[in-house]
Amino acid sequence: MPQSPDELRRLLADLPQADVAAQAAAKARNDMLTKPQGALGKLEDLALWLAAWQRREVPALDKVQVLVFAGNHGVVAQGVSAFPAAVTAQMVGNFAAGGAAINQLCQVAGAELTVLGLDLDRPTADFTQGPALSWAEFLDALRRGMARVDGKADLVCVGEMGIGNTTVAAALAHALYGGEARDWTGRGTGVDDAGLARKAQAVADGRVRHSDIMDDPLEIARCLGGRELAAMAGVALAARRASIPILIDGYVASAALAPLYAAAPDFLAHCWAAHVSAEPGHARLLEKMGLSPLLDLGMRLGEGSGAATAVPLLRAACATHAGMASFAAAGVAEKSE
Amino acid sequence: MPQSPDELRRLLADLPQADVAAQAAAKARNDMLTKPQGALGKLEDLALWLAAWQRREVPALDKVQVLVFAGNHGVVAQGVSAFPAAVTAQMVGNFAAGGAAINQLCQVAGAELTVLGLDLDRPTADFTQGPALSWAEFLDALRRGMARVDGKADLVCVGEMGIGNTTVAAALAHALYGGEARDWTGRGTGVDDAGLARKAQAVADGRVRHSDIMDDPLEIARCLGGRELAAMAGVALAARRASIPILIDGYVASAALAPLYAAAPDFLAHCWAAHVSAEPGHARLLEKMGLSPLLDLGMRLGEGSGAATAVPLLRAACATHAGMASFAAAGVAEKSE
Repeated sequence: MPQSPDELRRLLADLPQADVAAQAAAKARNDMLTKPQGALGKLEDLALWLAAWQRREVPALDKVQVLVFAGNHGVVAQGVSAFPAAVTAQMVGNFAAGGAAINQLCQVAGAELTVLGLDLDRPTADFTQGPALSWAEFLDALRRGMARVDGKADLVCVGEMGIGNTTVAAALAHALYGGEARDWTGRGTGVDDAGLARKAQAVADGRVRHSDIMDDPLEIARCLGGRELAAMAGVALAARRASIPILIDGYVASAALAPLYAAAPDFLAHCWAAHVSAEPGHARLLEKMGLSPLLDLGMRLGEGSGAATAVPLLRAACATHAGMASFAAAGVAEKSE
Repeated sequence: MPQSPDELRRLLADLPQADVAAQAAAKARNDMLTKPQGALGKLEDLALWLAAWQRREVPALDKVQVLVFAGNHGVVAQGVSAFPAAVTAQMVGNFAAGGAAINQLCQVAGAELTVLGLDLDRPTADFTQGPALSWAEFLDALRRGMARVDGKADLVCVGEMGIGNTTVAAALAHALYGGEARDWTGRGTGVDDAGLARKAQAVADGRVRHSDIMDDPLEIARCLGGRELAAMAGVALAARRASIPILIDGYVASAALAPLYAAAPDFLAHCWAAHVSAEPGHARLLEKMGLSPLLDLGMRLGEGSGAATAVPLLRAACATHAGMASFAAAGVAEKSE
């Protein structure tokens, strides 16, 4: 695990690749199944992608982790959220008690939920005033994320909870991809017009305040990010090193991985976007990141909820790939040429 | 069950309505759950819709039926399909043996699969030459569909298998909604360019051949349809009368219900489109039918595969609606106004 920015940079420069032989074997299998070629659409793509990263012809989802990280943010002082910051810790309690959306969705998905509150009583610094995190704090959160990845997992979903963190996501996206601050800024949990204006202003201020580090994606992640975002980046890094595929949740989870993608253009090869959220910046960000979402259900909750909701699609992909008969075995005539 | 066209028309003129009190109770419950209002997007809409048709505040999916009907079509004589007609019966055998995509998808969905081949050795007449079915044949298939609906089901998915039936779907859509025949015609299981041209010609010919009945949607269903389509219409009708919500599969299933929608504008209130398929006419048809699909995964298999793939989304909707804590119970602060 990286103890310094340089060590992190070295890890990002040396990412393991997918197993192309396993993917080719999975494709050969897929081509024989009793359906017209490509008729299962993205389910077929998912099966081959899972095969490539799970490094086996027939992928499976016996162990699915949903990792949710919570953090608090100094930027809430700018009046950017509809909910008080105390809600972050209250929702962590709700996760522990089994009462949140993600608890129910993990049951449907057949996934194990792990929630980690990261120094909730110690918010990041307000990024409009200075760096959100020191390097020590950033790397600590990243390592805590890395440590939660179970090497035996077949799939890991990353999600978050943190009052104010759609402002953080917008600030990261604006720093990495430019444009207007308001294009990246949405209502989050439901902020009113005045709050939305304050939020866009904070996003713009963040970029101006940290203009000297705009050419360094990892500095952007530290200065404009947050602990739960660093932890999600850590999860994606650890999963890549263990060749475990990742399902990304919403706007904040996507923004958490964006700096690593900016630092290492191949970083997202083991990642799939579970959904595009109702937060307007998310579709734009996914496009910048070259990701195509599986679901578009107007969700905007975070908590890993979109990722968990998409897990059954991957189960459908695995089940059809593993369980369907071949044309030959089923005695079904193939396409007449 | 209708024994005559007039009896069918009377049933369509007297459709039961949803339980608005149950829906209101479900909405009141939904508004108290620990999430920003509307943050679960369509999952919330689904929960309320299920509540309305299941006539209870807390909907459930204990019993989910997937009903797949198979039929053969005289129009294959026009050279409209990439696969030989014998594949319809071979695939019914594959369903029975558990080797098809829908078998695996039903397992993931927790659904009971029923497959019914409808007179596979007796294709419909070629609709470019005359009516595909007599009234007796049409009503027989419709009643056989109706009879498969279990009154205890919480949700019914409708799907089909039938070489040549995307041509039938296109012919129905073209008859009901006009436009150009080629706008409704796609490659189905993968027909080549010459086959696609023959297919569009057959669709155009069907409308011309039956121009005298274009003002009667039920005559359109009989003259241009097929047994598996009539059976799916029967399922939707029986489900409506039993207040059971319906998940519609792909292009053919949608086209099967389109004549009933044309005959009774309120007919689709208990129906949700599971997905929009890769068959280009499907998105256009869903728009005409006022349906918004849950999934867009480029699937084009039929068999009820898209509907079964969407079932876990409805499970997610039910699980969050039933299992989440309220703000008050969880001790989570609500939005500050």
